[in-house]
Amino acid sequence: MVDIATRVYNHKWKIDPIVRSLIDTDFYKLLMCQSVFRNKRDTRVEFSLINRSKSIRLAELIDEGELREQLDYVRGLRLTRGESTWLRGNNFYGKRQMFRSDFMEWFENVQLPPYHLEKRDGQYELTFEGAWPEVMLWEIPALAILMELRSRAVLNRMGRFDLQILYARAMTRLWEKIENLRKLPGLKIADFGTRRRHSFLWQDWCVQAMIEGLGDASEGGAFTGTSNCLIAMRRDLEAVGTNAHELPMVYAALAETDDELRKAPYRVLADWHEEHDGNLRIILPDTYGTKGFLDHAPGWLAGWTGIRIDSGDPVAGAEMAIDWWKSRGEDPRHKLVIFSDGLDVPEIRDLYARFHGRVKVSFGWGTLLTNDFRHLVPNDALAPFSLVCKAVSANGRPTVKLSDNPEKATGPAEEIERYRKVFEVGPQQARTVVV
Amino acid sequence: MVDIATRVYNHKWKIDPIVRSLIDTDFYKLLMCQSVFRNKRDTRVEFSLINRSKSIRLAELIDEGELREQLDYVRGLRLTRGESTWLRGNNFYGKRQMFRSDFMEWFENVQLPPYHLEKRDGQYELTFEGAWPEVMLWEIPALAILMELRSRAVLNRMGRFDLQILYARAMTRLWEKIENLRKLPGLKIADFGTRRRHSFLWQDWCVQAMIEGLGDASEGGAFTGTSNCLIAMRRDLEAVGTNAHELPMVYAALAETDDELRKAPYRVLADWHEEHDGNLRIILPDTYGTKGFLDHAPGWLAGWTGIRIDSGDPVAGAEMAIDWWKSRGEDPRHKLVIFSDGLDVPEIRDLYARFHGRVKVSFGWGTLLTNDFRHLVPNDALAPFSLVCKAVSANGRPTVKLSDNPEKATGPAEEIERYRKVFEVGPQQARTVVV
Repeated sequence: MVDIATRVYNHKWKIDPIVRSLIDTDFYKLLMCQSVFRNKRDTRVEFSLINRSKSIRLAELIDEGELREQLDYVRGLRLTRGESTWLRGNNFYGKRQMFRSDFMEWFENVQLPPYHLEKRDGQYELTFEGAWPEVMLWEIPALAILMELRSRAVLNRMGRFDLQILYARAMTRLWEKIENLRKLPGLKIADFGTRRRHSFLWQDWCVQAMIEGLGDASEGGAFTGTSNCLIAMRRDLEAVGTNAHELPMVYAALAETDDELRKAPYRVLADWHEEHDGNLRIILPDTYGTKGFLDHAPGWLAGWTGIRIDSGDPVAGAEMAIDWWKSRGEDPRHKLVIFSDGLDVPEIRDLYARFHGRVKVSFGWGTLLTNDFRHLVPNDALAPFSLVCKAVSANGRPTVKLSDNPEKATGPAEEIERYRKVFEVGPQQARTVVV
Repeated sequence: MVDIATRVYNHKWKIDPIVRSLIDTDFYKLLMCQSVFRNKRDTRVEFSLINRSKSIRLAELIDEGELREQLDYVRGLRLTRGESTWLRGNNFYGKRQMFRSDFMEWFENVQLPPYHLEKRDGQYELTFEGAWPEVMLWEIPALAILMELRSRAVLNRMGRFDLQILYARAMTRLWEKIENLRKLPGLKIADFGTRRRHSFLWQDWCVQAMIEGLGDASEGGAFTGTSNCLIAMRRDLEAVGTNAHELPMVYAALAETDDELRKAPYRVLADWHEEHDGNLRIILPDTYGTKGFLDHAPGWLAGWTGIRIDSGDPVAGAEMAIDWWKSRGEDPRHKLVIFSDGLDVPEIRDLYARFHGRVKVSFGWGTLLTNDFRHLVPNDALAPFSLVCKAVSANGRPTVKLSDNPEKATGPAEEIERYRKVFEVGPQQARTVVV
């Protein structure tokens, strides 16, 4: 029996919205948003879309009108009562009332600020300006929209059975990956794939496959949860994540002197230290070079729960952290190392083999979990690519990110030079950025 | 939106019926039924299930109660008004009113006769006795039920995602086969896979994939239709097929003398000749050996449209037919050769390469179209196997089939010997029967 009402209802949609909820975003974005709301509420920032994969000419693939409709749709979104209840009432990382009342009242009434969109050289220039706590909420939906519009542009040219077979192949591929991951006893792994997912529905399927194949960690399985709040809410999973580069980048841009600049990354974590404990105390050390960051870290930071390795050679990064903990009198076996940069099964397997038992290992699996359609269509037109949406200025000053891979550095050249000097970053090994 | 009424309706079913229509059967079964109804209406026959794959212990896999429920369900079926209208009004092989009024009136009121079911040595003994036109209607539903109950027994042990991946893999496999078949210009191929299908829904999907991938022959594509009347009706396709071994087997069993026996296979086709012309005049020569059949064939048979090669070495069989046509002054290029025995893509490709252009070639693709789940589950528990349901006696006398492969011979040993003598069948090459 066809449900006629459903069919008619579906026909009424003017568009098929990609992002349908303000909590279809990464959990850490909301955590950071609350921190910014508390500590840097009036900072003016600009975020900008950056397509590192120049060969993907987004402005030729994606219709500008459709892109505007999707972005406008997000501006029309408000937090629903159920979403607010979940954020207020849910237990995150073992803690109730993670989000305070003043933040929630603000979030319940927030509207995403206007965007600025232009085409240039086959790419979209998409920027967002305004108060930091509002602008920062654009990052994940903007990326998810562009990724999915690109998927749709390719899928639109395919027939019904080609589509069915495409998804059959992608499902088979992911299931085979999961079957391989099952062989690693004690594995802990989470979905970090919201921003560069193939589509919302596909991410949701991937998460369900992870639950089914690896088991929910709350019941002894390997799957520790998803960074996506909406999916976590609907699928009754842990929402996971802590903090990202945008905090030290903006704090650094706001520094008045080189000395303040040098202290900025620690200042971020000092603010964080006040607010959070336990598994939320995860160091992200690579914004201006992991080595210098650890060498000059204050004593209290060695007591944090763990570290996230998000650029550079992950083995070198993790070994550096282990040496650092030892030098500070900490037992690495009680420390958590989260790998989250460009992972797929071979990398996960190798890192697991090397570090399992020496530290507590966990993986944040992103793009190659939720967007591995490589080689499944002609010209590899669905291959994932490297799209980011970053803070480019704060109160009128440019931001800079160095990371442990010069290919991932962002900011004006002269500022990058200044930062390299201030943070004593020596020569770095370049690594190709795929996703 | 969940359609609550649909959900409740689905919960009301006591069983999930496998065969839900009297025309969920092969088209040629109905053509033959009409012929038998006209010519041999009062013949008493016994049909019996024969599992040639002894290692598949059906009685251990399939619950007897479930099997009885499914068989009982078929006994409750009646031809619906829409099915009757389609059979009466449709154009089959370019001809209107293929089914005459007296036959249709009988068919509208027919109920399938009782069955006899027993377990023995891990197998089911399933037999049907009664008037030939009624009993013969059991063959296809009985096979489809046993095949699908076996599939269900294996699938019942699998989880939701394992099931989804299983079908994703099977779909991908079939689509890759179809992509290969697309490379053969002028190919003609039909679905002959009802009796040994994985399930009804799967056959229906396979047919849709064939339409999508190869194109309907009525619009210039390679897919000439399906033997399944229900699917043909619902998907607006040609219903295809002509006649089968059961006609010469029963006619032969009824013969009073060796001489009558010798003439029996031709008698079948003489009756057929009166009723049908054009593409329905397809010789099935192998019941008692192709060579002898062709050598002693009456002159009018060389004028028939084509031949179906269903056992033995298909190349040898087709070459024999070509030589025979030439010896009778016929131009083989105007003759149709239908291959239908154990085909998969490599066989189809080889036979196409050898015969395309020399004769009109067509393929009846059966089990490996609608039931290729080989190596997709542990212990290969979904691999297709060789199950048949044959006339074993007529008016109390045993039937015999020799075919061009001694592995496919059926009947009592001493009768097989007599038939081999009467039909002058020499040594035959054994070929492994997979499906």
